[in-house]
Amino acid sequence: MEVKARAPGKIILSGEHAVVHGSTAVASSIDLYTYVSLSFPTPSDSDDALRLQLKEVGLEFSWPIGRLKAVLSELDIPNSSVPTSCSLESTKSLAALVDELKIPEAKIGLGAGVLAFLWLYSSIQGFKPATVVITSELPLGSGLGSSAAFCVALSGALLSFSDSVSLDLCHKEWTSFGESELDLLNKWAFEGEKIIHGKPSGIDNTVSTYGNMIKFRSGSLTRIKSNTTLKMLITNTKVGRNTKALVAGVSDRTLRHPKGMASVFNAVDSISTEMANIIQSSAPDDLSITEKEAKIEELMEMNQGLLQCMGVSHASIETVIRTTLKYKLASKLTGAGGGGTVVHEVTAELESCGFRCLTAAIGGNGVEICFGGSS
Amino acid sequence: MEVKARAPGKIILSGEHAVVHGSTAVASSIDLYTYVSLSFPTPSDSDDALRLQLKEVGLEFSWPIGRLKAVLSELDIPNSSVPTSCSLESTKSLAALVDELKIPEAKIGLGAGVLAFLWLYSSIQGFKPATVVITSELPLGSGLGSSAAFCVALSGALLSFSDSVSLDLCHKEWTSFGESELDLLNKWAFEGEKIIHGKPSGIDNTVSTYGNMIKFRSGSLTRIKSNTTLKMLITNTKVGRNTKALVAGVSDRTLRHPKGMASVFNAVDSISTEMANIIQSSAPDDLSITEKEAKIEELMEMNQGLLQCMGVSHASIETVIRTTLKYKLASKLTGAGGGGTVVHEVTAELESCGFRCLTAAIGGNGVEICFGGSS
Repeated sequence: MEVKARAPGKIILSGEHAVVHGSTAVASSIDLYTYVSLSFPTPSDSDDALRLQLKEVGLEFSWPIGRLKAVLSELDIPNSSVPTSCSLESTKSLAALVDELKIPEAKIGLGAGVLAFLWLYSSIQGFKPATVVITSELPLGSGLGSSAAFCVALSGALLSFSDSVSLDLCHKEWTSFGESELDLLNKWAFEGEKIIHGKPSGIDNTVSTYGNMIKFRSGSLTRIKSNTTLKMLITNTKVGRNTKALVAGVSDRTLRHPKGMASVFNAVDSISTEMANIIQSSAPDDLSITEKEAKIEELMEMNQGLLQCMGVSHASIETVIRTTLKYKLASKLTGAGGGGTVVHEVTAELESCGFRCLTAAIGGNGVEICFGGSS
Repeated sequence: MEVKARAPGKIILSGEHAVVHGSTAVASSIDLYTYVSLSFPTPSDSDDALRLQLKEVGLEFSWPIGRLKAVLSELDIPNSSVPTSCSLESTKSLAALVDELKIPEAKIGLGAGVLAFLWLYSSIQGFKPATVVITSELPLGSGLGSSAAFCVALSGALLSFSDSVSLDLCHKEWTSFGESELDLLNKWAFEGEKIIHGKPSGIDNTVSTYGNMIKFRSGSLTRIKSNTTLKMLITNTKVGRNTKALVAGVSDRTLRHPKGMASVFNAVDSISTEMANIIQSSAPDDLSITEKEAKIEELMEMNQGLLQCMGVSHASIETVIRTTLKYKLASKLTGAGGGGTVVHEVTAELESCGFRCLTAAIGGNGVEICFGGSS
């Protein structure tokens, strides 16, 4: 018995950082996915372990089921229909289990993801032997929501074999869940995100679960539906970030220049609101796709200037912007057609700087599953 | 009889472009000057021409006095105490005179300056033979106010030999004018600027005349006094600008995104106001020089982000910012000490990009004159 689930990454179109100070932000799913394959051994199989393979980083772990039962004794009766936070005690027990894995120093950041995996697995599926294989098109720690996509795809795979979700197991193509099932899945994924990030905003898992786009402000999320297919060139500068320090820097600057920064946050709020309106507009007399692209492009440029004003831009980001501007790619980049040769040229130049370029459509489907052999 | 006048260039510290939309802007004089030397022939001298030498561009012109009299017949009785606009008719006549000079195509932009020279000279000094020599430390057309410095220094030299100004001709050191004389001088310089620019804001000639700094908003200028000496590294990217097109671009963007841009202009206004307050603060318990530098630096960075948001930044400007940031020069650049070795290193790197670096103190004296041999 095997199920595959995939969940998309996300990109913030506008409002990052300012959202902490009350501005609206807009995030979209991108058609780059994390895949989770879950398979249970046949009854005749004597293997009695839970196995986890992280293909992208070349790591593989396994735990005897008895060991998991002993460690997570509070979970005798797993209840997949009630998303539960990992208690402090369970976190400690699982952390000890993860410590034993001796994850190489360079990949130590994966420990929290493994912990989240163990919690979600045992909470939803209990203590059954299984093999879980993770592959991903999303670079880790690049702001594209790889951890949320992992939690969402994992929750999707686990719930599809639970009592809480009823699915036709004959699906050989990528299939979505029902709305109430997505709500449950999203809550489970959020529990995983909490283990990985401490205090996640819930944006990443929500976008990854439902797909399309969301608008968020002061903690409340609104799903919005894009009526256009837009493609973007996403450049991973591979410059590590320290999100906490950046967030603190913006707050410090706000304390030093309260009036100026308040206007900056208002500007971001207007930009995000306008962005959401453009994305949603669909009436025939509304903007053409090209006009939409141009407007979104301009709003993203404005948002970038405001990020620089907040002090959270970076030399490498400016390099990317200037390189794309040099090729006058503004409208082509987001164009449905992708820009062809020009995109190839700009990609080549950016990659020669040591960056990695990805092309992605924004606003696509959320989490999906399929049974059997489909990809 | 010879007089030398010098007038400083200016730099806008914050608010450029946004000032057109009602935001406050702050400009400061810099200690880079345009020099005008004016000498009259001795009575025994038989030369009966007005000569103009533009040293930086290697051009020299002369006009027989009789020719000037014929062309500017309306000006029989020059009145140096009443600044007068060049009439449409005089502009036409002088333009014809300038056309005859056959200024090389590459330097054709100087024509308006020559026209302004002829107007100011004959309006203030009438039709006397003289030799006027111009030298300048200010690169032309780089936004440092070279044309205003030219008009101000020229007006200063011309007025110092007029009935409107009474000066002790023994001054061998740079000496300032009295306040009411500066007011007159500034008005004459503005008439020159009008010939060169059409509709100048009056900011450049005002800063160049009075020195120090000014705050301006919706057409009204307020002189402010800096209580600190700050030095800046100014980088001339040598990228030509089309001010008119840039201004139009900001207006277009404002029409497309009125709400967001209104907040951006508010942010600029707050930044400029704060900048002016910091510059003026002097009480002993006020900010230390280092803190002032850090605050001004931060406000300038914020202003730059907002310029990017308005769409008027440029790849080369970003390169300059990123290069200086790389050297962590933020506070050192504006430091009174100038930053020593680090400034040399960053200058070398920027000049290797084809840029030209200048170091200048901001907030210094305005127009000054000296008689005889001083420099």
